[in-house]
Amino acid sequence: MQTPLPAHGGDRQWAARLARCRIEELVDFSASINPLGPPPGVQAAYREGFVDLLHYPAPHGSDLQSALAAHLGIEPERIVCGNGAAELLTWAGRECAGAGLTVLPVPAFGDYRRALAAFDAPYISVPLAADFSLPEALPPGDAVMLANPHNPSGYLYSPTVLAALCDRFKLLIFDEAFIDFLDDPAAFSALCGPEHPGLIVIRSLTKFYSLPGLRLGYAVLPVAMAARWQAWRDPWPVNALAQHLGVAALADRDFERRTRAWLGPARCRLAAGLAALPGLTVLPGAANFLLVQSATSAVHLQAELLRRHRLLIRHCTSYDGLGEGYFRVAVRGESENALLIGALGEILAKTPATSRVDGCASNPPPSPDRGRPA
Amino acid sequence: MQTPLPAHGGDRQWAARLARCRIEELVDFSASINPLGPPPGVQAAYREGFVDLLHYPAPHGSDLQSALAAHLGIEPERIVCGNGAAELLTWAGRECAGAGLTVLPVPAFGDYRRALAAFDAPYISVPLAADFSLPEALPPGDAVMLANPHNPSGYLYSPTVLAALCDRFKLLIFDEAFIDFLDDPAAFSALCGPEHPGLIVIRSLTKFYSLPGLRLGYAVLPVAMAARWQAWRDPWPVNALAQHLGVAALADRDFERRTRAWLGPARCRLAAGLAALPGLTVLPGAANFLLVQSATSAVHLQAELLRRHRLLIRHCTSYDGLGEGYFRVAVRGESENALLIGALGEILAKTPATSRVDGCASNPPPSPDRGRPA
Repeated sequence: MQTPLPAHGGDRQWAARLARCRIEELVDFSASINPLGPPPGVQAAYREGFVDLLHYPAPHGSDLQSALAAHLGIEPERIVCGNGAAELLTWAGRECAGAGLTVLPVPAFGDYRRALAAFDAPYISVPLAADFSLPEALPPGDAVMLANPHNPSGYLYSPTVLAALCDRFKLLIFDEAFIDFLDDPAAFSALCGPEHPGLIVIRSLTKFYSLPGLRLGYAVLPVAMAARWQAWRDPWPVNALAQHLGVAALADRDFERRTRAWLGPARCRLAAGLAALPGLTVLPGAANFLLVQSATSAVHLQAELLRRHRLLIRHCTSYDGLGEGYFRVAVRGESENALLIGALGEILAKTPATSRVDGCASNPPPSPDRGRPA
Repeated sequence: MQTPLPAHGGDRQWAARLARCRIEELVDFSASINPLGPPPGVQAAYREGFVDLLHYPAPHGSDLQSALAAHLGIEPERIVCGNGAAELLTWAGRECAGAGLTVLPVPAFGDYRRALAAFDAPYISVPLAADFSLPEALPPGDAVMLANPHNPSGYLYSPTVLAALCDRFKLLIFDEAFIDFLDDPAAFSALCGPEHPGLIVIRSLTKFYSLPGLRLGYAVLPVAMAARWQAWRDPWPVNALAQHLGVAALADRDFERRTRAWLGPARCRLAAGLAALPGLTVLPGAANFLLVQSATSAVHLQAELLRRHRLLIRHCTSYDGLGEGYFRVAVRGESENALLIGALGEILAKTPATSRVDGCASNPPPSPDRGRPA
């Protein structure tokens, strides 16, 4: 029986149907959300947050903008809050359309292509190296769109690499949706690199603070570009509760410390447990997820994990060049990670040779394509 | 002292500064929100809604879409939910850009121009008649964008008028943000008129159900157009709590009945009270607000009501052709409406002749303009 595959992680409705269970019974490794959150201050803010819904969000100069400016040490005018980072990717795609040709290193988060296609932005996709570093030579272009840490591999590009990109492109979109999970985000963020008149940094508040249902992200960008985006979108794009809870989340510095203290060791143990299983190779990653290369079809593994264990992982067929030979898992709590390792071990021990990915060990690198999407 | 004037109603931060009070001390007549809401079921749903924030919103086939389909008696595929009706106006503006020339009867909600300008949609604005009915002759064009009931006048266009527009234009955007306030919305909605391949109806859930901070609206449109809009926007534009509370709101049919039972008499008493004041002429309106023509500058009245009484009304200088001679007030609860009438009476009794609007009684009608906005 063919089951339609969701294009993104976190589609729990689809997964629960396949697992024949209630959505709440799933353990979701497909969406890379911090399992320690939301911070206690956010829960308290929610309890008194109903009144936020009774009035329009402040159309300008929100408290959230001020809180972010203080958090980052930059001017509030450079910050545009968004209805999730994905909303801001839409407008970044429109900037790309205006800039000329966009260079898109792949594999990449699928929504980049959507955002580029939404405005008929011409782009050329360029395969990353086998270890997900940038290739030696990039084709000429006007803009570049790249996640740092990279999604789905977790590869972390160095400040030197970012600076070299800043020298080459007139427009740079760095998606730092997962950068808060680093021990020292400032040491790797493009915000701390050389100034550049076409630099856009997009971040999410909902992965680190575990609030993906709320929709909350922000972009840091040149002031003139910020004004242009505000004219493209309606005056109230960020819901009032998201603004309120975002301020509460940023205030919890202890939550930041706890998350960073948890992640390193937890990721290390999960990686070791997965790497010990037959046919799995775990890529080193800096974020709160791990990309795993698998000799057994990841589509098969996903289905079996759902059907037998109600565990949802993310196979990577929607990422260019990865195909069935890869899956991505979020780092979750200790006992859940152990469940995943045990369940995968059980499934792999029983998997017939026919479910193996053909030639996976020498998976061909993705080939470049050029396109102006329809 | 010059105080910058907000472009939209509901800017309570700005108003509280002018009134030198806390935001909560303001009585807001500028945003046209149902004072009876939110419905009790929405408050109950909020109390158990925190878990909604912990996961991504369902990317397709949401419960809200199904609830709206059942509520309206149409296919869910024709419904696109939005992050407020204003987000959907953005994409309607993009449709206009693709259609050709848009005819924009004015005065109109200011966000229509923003949405048209966002995609360089050429448009021609056409003054409505003095009573806000459509003029006898409309210029040729491809698209038309019109609120029904009209904002800011509350004028209700008949099914016959809508049908005539459907005969003339290939794309029609009817903004029915306030239509739920009618006793029988179905009798006036374009959804119940003749089928048309280019018909877009946009509605808000946050005015009638008193949840403007939540951001929730929807569009009913042809299936192919719905698919196009979904490709333009990110996969999670509507926050999960808004989806949940939207379903709870629609379920409360008693709230609908109570609102409709309240509005007619309350609007009638407010209109009578205002009309009895010197220099004020109240326009008949079908929505939950009233447009008032004033011989005294509405900018002056707004400032005085704020400074002396902490009451916030909406002057209409941002609406084409209305200028300082008009203000708009929401219909609120009985005692608040009485407060407004009393405060206005007091201010008008003391207002010097210099604050009078020059020639207001014979305000010139707005002149048409043509433009492709920059």
